[in-house]
Amino acid sequence: MARAHNFNAGPAGLPLAALERAQRELLDFEGTGMSIMEHSHRGKSYEAVHNEAVSLTKELCGIPDGYDVLFLQGGASLQFAMVPMNFLPEGKTADYVITGGWSEKAYQEAGRLGKVRVAATTEQNKKYTRIPKQGEIQVDPAAAYVHITTNNTLFGTQWHYDPEVGNVPLIADMSSDIMWKPINVSKYSLIYAGAQKNIGPSGVVIVIVKKDFLATARKDIPVILRYGTHAENNSLYNTPPTFGIYLVRNVLAVTKEMGGLSAMEAHNRKKGDLLYSTIDSDPDFFRAPVEKESRSYMNIVFRLPTEELEKKFVSEAAKKQMIGLAGHRSTGGIRVSAYNAVSYESMEALTSFMREFRKTAPAA
Amino acid sequence: MARAHNFNAGPAGLPLAALERAQRELLDFEGTGMSIMEHSHRGKSYEAVHNEAVSLTKELCGIPDGYDVLFLQGGASLQFAMVPMNFLPEGKTADYVITGGWSEKAYQEAGRLGKVRVAATTEQNKKYTRIPKQGEIQVDPAAAYVHITTNNTLFGTQWHYDPEVGNVPLIADMSSDIMWKPINVSKYSLIYAGAQKNIGPSGVVIVIVKKDFLATARKDIPVILRYGTHAENNSLYNTPPTFGIYLVRNVLAVTKEMGGLSAMEAHNRKKGDLLYSTIDSDPDFFRAPVEKESRSYMNIVFRLPTEELEKKFVSEAAKKQMIGLAGHRSTGGIRVSAYNAVSYESMEALTSFMREFRKTAPAA
Repeated sequence: MARAHNFNAGPAGLPLAALERAQRELLDFEGTGMSIMEHSHRGKSYEAVHNEAVSLTKELCGIPDGYDVLFLQGGASLQFAMVPMNFLPEGKTADYVITGGWSEKAYQEAGRLGKVRVAATTEQNKKYTRIPKQGEIQVDPAAAYVHITTNNTLFGTQWHYDPEVGNVPLIADMSSDIMWKPINVSKYSLIYAGAQKNIGPSGVVIVIVKKDFLATARKDIPVILRYGTHAENNSLYNTPPTFGIYLVRNVLAVTKEMGGLSAMEAHNRKKGDLLYSTIDSDPDFFRAPVEKESRSYMNIVFRLPTEELEKKFVSEAAKKQMIGLAGHRSTGGIRVSAYNAVSYESMEALTSFMREFRKTAPAA
Repeated sequence: MARAHNFNAGPAGLPLAALERAQRELLDFEGTGMSIMEHSHRGKSYEAVHNEAVSLTKELCGIPDGYDVLFLQGGASLQFAMVPMNFLPEGKTADYVITGGWSEKAYQEAGRLGKVRVAATTEQNKKYTRIPKQGEIQVDPAAAYVHITTNNTLFGTQWHYDPEVGNVPLIADMSSDIMWKPINVSKYSLIYAGAQKNIGPSGVVIVIVKKDFLATARKDIPVILRYGTHAENNSLYNTPPTFGIYLVRNVLAVTKEMGGLSAMEAHNRKKGDLLYSTIDSDPDFFRAPVEKESRSYMNIVFRLPTEELEKKFVSEAAKKQMIGLAGHRSTGGIRVSAYNAVSYESMEALTSFMREFRKTAPAA
């Protein structure tokens, strides 16, 4: 069976070389007669993999001294709770910039744990067609932190600048675009990302946290929910998701081989530019709702003239092994997720199909 | 490379057939041109796997109506916090039976969140050589719940009865012996278990919870930490660890093929009896600290006359591909973990090595 063109929003496609390596080693990791998932998390074989995943993350993201890299469980959804549990003390307020469904969820979860405030929103009747401009973001200088979501999978928007927030610690959920391009880590006090878009399978979440910021965290919460617990133990306080972290290691090794995050950015821009130019070549038929400066290179959304045509588009594409093109159930339309592992060839196949589909479709 | 004799305490060996299936399907799950880990968690392919993992759990454990089966993340360590967060309201006390290092941790974490009480302990200077008798367990009839740890990996003890606790809800951490034999689920209000001993890789935790008990859970905690959130969404509220759950499905399918939990019990007793009889045949040399009625069939611990001999035992065994025999770093000695996937042949190899080692060792 040929590899599908996988445009899933997440879990998403992974680099073939990373999967082939996993397949080769699945029954016998480096001559040990055991799968890596059968090794102790305190043994030499696994620890080498674990530490390589950490060091590849540091290298690829250019993480300066003074930051810890953690591999945790529970996805971004658990981070929505852990961030305020650790960093929102009583008497303080946390600022949230609301740009879509995921930042809404982060804001709501924090609101169950403490006092929260909207620093900016582009909600406009749940449409979220853009990222706010710097001037629209009203940061409370006394806020415990400001939280942003750098890419919005549902609405297809993406931040193309790191916001200035003065001396307030900046926290970013980068679940759906981490490592799509180089990251200005030093702008952030904490970055978190579920692995299942750009860097691995679901079940692993990566956290990059500034040590100085970590030192300010609350201690009156369960041990397992303190970032400090995991930082002090190199993410080995409890048994980590060893096979998931092994797969992240495999993906990051491939990412490095391909030239690192600058190469990823060129690759992703080339794919996105091809798709957006196809969309823009017939804007009455391919209707892109997102403001141009806010367009995401990870999730490209558009509508067709009718829902019927959208259904037909998705089902005919599926016949050509192009998978995952239906928009989120809450938004409808078409969504093309084009994470790091999606090849330019897949995007060529899709845009060629789009032009073909346009020709045979009734006039808009 | 031949398969190692894997006596790891966890993550531990998995059934070869479950791994071979994963290897076969790793690049192409059921002709879809994608790995199962590249499928959407909301797509048909993954949902069938997910639901099969749930239904196999129900079938194998004979779970009566009125219970939910959940697959969560964060391991038993997160359960140590989630249990009291959900089920220990202000003004109530939770009872803990302390039988080893893990129940200590569960007790301490709960103590950070509410009022806790020791219903029984076999601590005796950190030795924990036995499970308490029914008559020793002093349950507060007004307790929110009673918590036990059914098997103690560090000290090699195991409960061989379900304690009577009156009308107080009974909660069990079965991480290291779930499915080692049939389970009296109806005795328990909540069972949890990290997968990485008997049923899968690390990164998945299984929860079996009585619906009536769940209905009493607190609602004033983060959404992601409420059991109810996951029960209402068939463990698909957020992205689950899809590949981990797929592997659990594979292991449970093999467990069923092998005859289910009665067959597992016979298999595990046969292995344990062989090992304990070898130990007991020379009790001056193989020194088993655990009271006979409390002996674990999952983790069999013993000491040799000197630490030097213990080191030699572990290193010579490793040369014969017998892995994971060093005791926990906090206890020392020898520990043989004999989870479901450890074969009788591996136990024969080990006991044969033990007899050989005894012969060549200096007199005790």
